[in-house]
Amino acid sequence: MTAPTLTSIREAKERLHGVIHATPLAHSTSLSEEAGMDLRFKPENLQITGSFKIRGAFNKIKSLVDAGAKGVVTASSGNHGQAVAWAARYFGLPARIIVPTTAPAIKVASARAFGAEVEFFGTRSRERLERAEQVAQELGYVFVPPYDDAWVMSGQGTLGLEILQEWPDVEAVVVPIGGGGLISGIATAIKETRPDVRVIGVEPEGAAKAFQSRQQGRRVELPGTESLADGLITLALGHLTHPIVERYVDDLYTVSEEAIQQTLWRLMTRLKLVVEPSGAVTSAFLLSEQGRARLGGRRVVAVISGGNVDPEVLRTIPVQ
Amino acid sequence: MTAPTLTSIREAKERLHGVIHATPLAHSTSLSEEAGMDLRFKPENLQITGSFKIRGAFNKIKSLVDAGAKGVVTASSGNHGQAVAWAARYFGLPARIIVPTTAPAIKVASARAFGAEVEFFGTRSRERLERAEQVAQELGYVFVPPYDDAWVMSGQGTLGLEILQEWPDVEAVVVPIGGGGLISGIATAIKETRPDVRVIGVEPEGAAKAFQSRQQGRRVELPGTESLADGLITLALGHLTHPIVERYVDDLYTVSEEAIQQTLWRLMTRLKLVVEPSGAVTSAFLLSEQGRARLGGRRVVAVISGGNVDPEVLRTIPVQ
Ligand SMILES: Cc1ncc(COP(=O)(O)O)c(C=O)c1O
Ligand SMILES: Cc1ncc(COP(=O)(O)O)c(C=O)c1O
Repeated sequence: MTAPTLTSIREAKERLHGVIHATPLAHSTSLSEEAGMDLRFKPENLQITGSFKIRGAFNKIKSLVDAGAKGVVTASSGNHGQAVAWAARYFGLPARIIVPTTAPAIKVASARAFGAEVEFFGTRSRERLERAEQVAQELGYVFVPPYDDAWVMSGQGTLGLEILQEWPDVEAVVVPIGGGGLISGIATAIKETRPDVRVIGVEPEGAAKAFQSRQQGRRVELPGTESLADGLITLALGHLTHPIVERYVDDLYTVSEEAIQQTLWRLMTRLKLVVEPSGAVTSAFLLSEQGRARLGGRRVVAVISGGNVDPEVLRTIPVQ
Repeated sequence: MTAPTLTSIREAKERLHGVIHATPLAHSTSLSEEAGMDLRFKPENLQITGSFKIRGAFNKIKSLVDAGAKGVVTASSGNHGQAVAWAARYFGLPARIIVPTTAPAIKVASARAFGAEVEFFGTRSRERLERAEQVAQELGYVFVPPYDDAWVMSGQGTLGLEILQEWPDVEAVVVPIGGGGLISGIATAIKETRPDVRVIGVEPEGAAKAFQSRQQGRRVELPGTESLADGLITLALGHLTHPIVERYVDDLYTVSEEAIQQTLWRLMTRLKLVVEPSGAVTSAFLLSEQGRARLGGRRVVAVISGGNVDPEVLRTIPVQ
């Protein structure tokens, strides 16, 4: 299986049922008025482990457990790592998370809190990936990819089904893009049931790999990326996610760092929700001139994909 | 009517149905573990206008509309003022909010955004109350009290019914105390249906009017109060709320300013919720030594009463 299907997403939904939180759509009259549309938010910052990542990680790890895996390993110190740690503990499976020697203590602590073993290794993601594969071979563990995997994408796709079910009148769903796993799952769920509903992807200006890929008509690998939105600074879409993005995503937009910062505080004061920068890019787009021009007057869902932000980072962002 | 009754609270619940948000209990495994109890949160920061105050204000104003009122007036620049403005607009009734000449622009802006007329008058609450009565007489408006009123307390009591309905196994409900309207309503709802469920009140050390009143066996009026929890710095319980607190509230506790500050960030990082200082005192108590000693091992709800906090205030609070 190289792509999620409606069936694989529906099966993921059954597996996740009773395990993860329901995250009913949130809404704010004042933000809807500001954006000039009926704007609702899918608050995955309130999800178990603080992000949507548990959906894909759990679905993948359940399939590995069914196939008799002895343990799991991954190379992410962020939301994916926490999700893998949580899901592994759920199934009583050992988990090892390879993190850079420079990983912030706060991230390491959460993975450990879920019972995972944390290994510090190198500083580049390529080194960590190689180390993860080595661990997989040595210990017989299975590697859990962060996005370029059909099981993972199927898990993320459950979020799309939930939105359609809760708000059948929705006209557009706006999704952040890192490696493209989240939007691939959501777009498959939506386009294979309700092709009239628009799916729109948003990236930081400093990490516009999907936007560039569409412009150039091929899977672009950026030389470098930079953004406060640390879940979205992947250098390229995945080999599996890229064709799905090209097939199913209607439009791609970018947002500035300033817009992301402004939006963080707006979401805090209006929605009373703590959102991480990666989770705020969708709202940043919808509250911009471009967002209003594209979707004004429509019924729109912004996916708030996570809430794991270091308070010290929040405190350095000026209130605007 | 000088006190809420089970009937008046049930009637308030019907009036509020379909108008206010459902605020399902939130929970965090890590905070439950820290507190050593099964701890859930009633997130009224996600309520319309950002606090529980809409419950009482709406119930009161509905009764005034039924009785043919021409307009409403109140003297609060805070959550109560916003709630009165919102409810008045709902019924198409003019509202005037008397605020101190020193009121922060941000608070004035929200009352105005809901269509209320804002009048600046004096700096002391006594002056504003007198001015409000004058306005009431001149314009034929009716004064909406913030807590010392049976309709207002009945509205706040709906929160107690919701908790019992959502979690029948709850053993204790912990509530912040300002003028005592919120806890009077909740305690009436709980004690008149489930007298086995404990109701516990929490105040800042710098505004311990209920605690002092119980110790001294009379309604104490403090010479002054001080706390970051600006919704709780009332000088005294109300004449109507005091006997209800004495009759129905099992225990009263105080928390330090330091504990309130620490808890704000804990709620932000663990629950991903923005909570105002007044809404954080209950969690501050439950996460303290005293809280664990009193309620360890129990099924407990902490009422998060509001989320209207100035981001600049948040930014000045150290992360601990
Ligand atoms: C909060 C958050 N949002 C969005 C994304 C992007 O997801 P994907 O890599 O599947 O595109 C991530 C990835 O880590 C994330 O942590
Ligand atoms: C957020 C918040 N919590 C608690 C209270 C206390 O409510 P009461 O005055 O009814 O005791 C208030 C009052 O303004 C408030 O704004």
